[in-house]
Amino acid sequence: MIDIQKANETAVNRMMTARPILKTVATARDVIPGMRDKLLLHAGPPITWQRASGPMKGAIIGGILFEGWARDEGSAIELAETGAIKLEPCHEHDAVGPMAGITSPSMKVYVVENVTHGNMAYSNLNEGYGKVLRYGAYSTEVLDKLRWMNDVMGPVLAEALVLSDGLDMRALLAESLHMGDEGHNRNKAGSIMFTTKLAPHIVNTDATDAVKAEILQFMGENALTVLNPVMAACKAMADAGHGIEGSTVMTVMARNGTDLGIRVSGLGDQWFTGPVGQPDGLYFPGFTADDASGDIGDSTITETAGIGAFAMASAPAIVTFISGTPEMAINTTLKMYEITTAEHNAFSIPALGFRGTPVGVDIRKVIELGIRPQINTGIAHREPGIGQVGAGLVLPPMNVFEDALLAYAQKYLT
Amino acid sequence: MIDIQKANETAVNRMMTARPILKTVATARDVIPGMRDKLLLHAGPPITWQRASGPMKGAIIGGILFEGWARDEGSAIELAETGAIKLEPCHEHDAVGPMAGITSPSMKVYVVENVTHGNMAYSNLNEGYGKVLRYGAYSTEVLDKLRWMNDVMGPVLAEALVLSDGLDMRALLAESLHMGDEGHNRNKAGSIMFTTKLAPHIVNTDATDAVKAEILQFMGENALTVLNPVMAACKAMADAGHGIEGSTVMTVMARNGTDLGIRVSGLGDQWFTGPVGQPDGLYFPGFTADDASGDIGDSTITETAGIGAFAMASAPAIVTFISGTPEMAINTTLKMYEITTAEHNAFSIPALGFRGTPVGVDIRKVIELGIRPQINTGIAHREPGIGQVGAGLVLPPMNVFEDALLAYAQKYLT
Repeated sequence: MIDIQKANETAVNRMMTARPILKTVATARDVIPGMRDKLLLHAGPPITWQRASGPMKGAIIGGILFEGWARDEGSAIELAETGAIKLEPCHEHDAVGPMAGITSPSMKVYVVENVTHGNMAYSNLNEGYGKVLRYGAYSTEVLDKLRWMNDVMGPVLAEALVLSDGLDMRALLAESLHMGDEGHNRNKAGSIMFTTKLAPHIVNTDATDAVKAEILQFMGENALTVLNPVMAACKAMADAGHGIEGSTVMTVMARNGTDLGIRVSGLGDQWFTGPVGQPDGLYFPGFTADDASGDIGDSTITETAGIGAFAMASAPAIVTFISGTPEMAINTTLKMYEITTAEHNAFSIPALGFRGTPVGVDIRKVIELGIRPQINTGIAHREPGIGQVGAGLVLPPMNVFEDALLAYAQKYLT
Repeated sequence: MIDIQKANETAVNRMMTARPILKTVATARDVIPGMRDKLLLHAGPPITWQRASGPMKGAIIGGILFEGWARDEGSAIELAETGAIKLEPCHEHDAVGPMAGITSPSMKVYVVENVTHGNMAYSNLNEGYGKVLRYGAYSTEVLDKLRWMNDVMGPVLAEALVLSDGLDMRALLAESLHMGDEGHNRNKAGSIMFTTKLAPHIVNTDATDAVKAEILQFMGENALTVLNPVMAACKAMADAGHGIEGSTVMTVMARNGTDLGIRVSGLGDQWFTGPVGQPDGLYFPGFTADDASGDIGDSTITETAGIGAFAMASAPAIVTFISGTPEMAINTTLKMYEITTAEHNAFSIPALGFRGTPVGVDIRKVIELGIRPQINTGIAHREPGIGQVGAGLVLPPMNVFEDALLAYAQKYLT
């Protein structure tokens, strides 16, 4: 007889005791397992070019152009259509990427080590708001910024992080949750904390003053600077809870714009997928819900690890960005306690009397109570090449939990 | 017949429309009106050496040693006792200083201009936690740090601020209130925001990399870095509301460790003073309430300007530092609405549905309701030379409001 509760506690305890240290920035092909030429990693469960959403297609085109595998949009599309470029999920390579999540072999990535259990996680660099690759934009302006990030900022961050001896991302997150962040869609405090912690080390690198100042300004003005290392940290924590025999804890939840997929600790590397939802939220001037792509991105690794929408009670100011009221933010966190396994011992919510955040979604409880994990998210334009149009709330499809529980029953209860 | 309500609205509207821009850092004697040789500015209402509290005496000794007016503690005390060193309130020189508030002619000060109404305000540089002059410590270590701040950090901050074209402190405060700060005793978010905003400009100064890195590290690790420019900003805002004929709005509240004094908009430069309270709070390891000095510091300019304890609902995490519960923090803000004139249109509280902070204490309401303005404060050791021992909550003596209302009646209603 399997002690499911005990297995879940083991999984969640491993997630909570994981200590993700941001070690450096490196080139994807040098560090990400299985990264190779003509391979693009993407957000969410597996997807083909043919089934990919607009923003995913745009980001794939951008990734191909960035690598120089094609010289123009038309040739890039041709390469993608013929299957000459392989597409594999970030999550199958210990990595995560926000929105389209496109990560190519030459791209610089953050390198996070869970020093408790030894597993690694990776995420690309954050481009900021506006027209950016991760939202499916791939103009010259977008690619030029990516090249600056890759060739200029990346090496300086690598040197600065090595000088810093590594940043404890769990400690940074714990503190930013006390500063009105929830770690997914609101990372304002975490981003300036990250910038402040790195600033003296950036000064001590070999870069010119002009470059150092440009990097510090870019990091300081981008309220999402810390999102990607936070996501890599959450991936390192969630992965620590994966692979526990008999556990019904969700360890991956990710969307590619077409499908949302989850993985469950006790069910190996199998994806359970279903159609993505349509986010409901606030739109930037000039855009409406008609412009919105389906839900997309690996950033739901934050909710998976017990922050993001699960910690929304810490971030009442987020409602100016995603719609809703501060009460709704509190109630979202309270509801998530009902479907989770533990209250986090590293992340607490001052407004709830310092109660730990809800962590470790138990797929049994999702089915039993009919309560799905809440997701905070950015919203991409449905067409390739445009970018972000808003931010809001969305839910995963219920069938992924039903399918996972069925698979669990077949594996463990027959 | 005086329209008191209208006068109060004028006063508070001026406080709210004031836009304090941090322009630069300069030497006190070059910018503070009336600053001169052998003069020390101090926190609170006027005080003599003889009546000064332990931490105030310690800081006066430190100020004399810092200026080189005496070579040792004994000679410094002698100078102070004989009246060879003059003591005048910071507030009588457009300035404010936290805790003892000692500001001497050679000290570097932040220069804030209210660009709406043209008035200026000044505050010294923040030394961080531990053994520091503002808490009455004056060891070699304390003076060495002050000299580094004055001779090394100050000029770099001056250059960086000029390069920045000035920082809008009201905007910074508005944002930090959405990040769990209340701006008086919790300035964690504001301090890293300040550091982040200045970082690129610090890089662009003429200092060496070692100095730039040292400054950025000192600023980033000091959770009170922004307190002093915030106080100068609050002084610039509060002063904009001062001097309105017929107004019963409090525009100064300050303590020197012995007396607390207030000033009222319609009552000119008269101080109304009474004995300071004993803060009630949490003590650092090894200290108890028996070690505490009476309430001290000009930092209550924050409450005067509508933040600090008045905005505590924004800062639930502060209770780990000053005692209490997140509910108490919310209730404190709610109570302050009862004795204030307006809800701030620049500072809002997400947890209260983005309601503006209570601003402009009306001394009539204090008397009528028996509700005194709440103060968040650091706690100094009662003996000179030791430093901070804790942080907590305290109230002003009721008689200052009674005396002020009596003076108001004599001036306006007879």
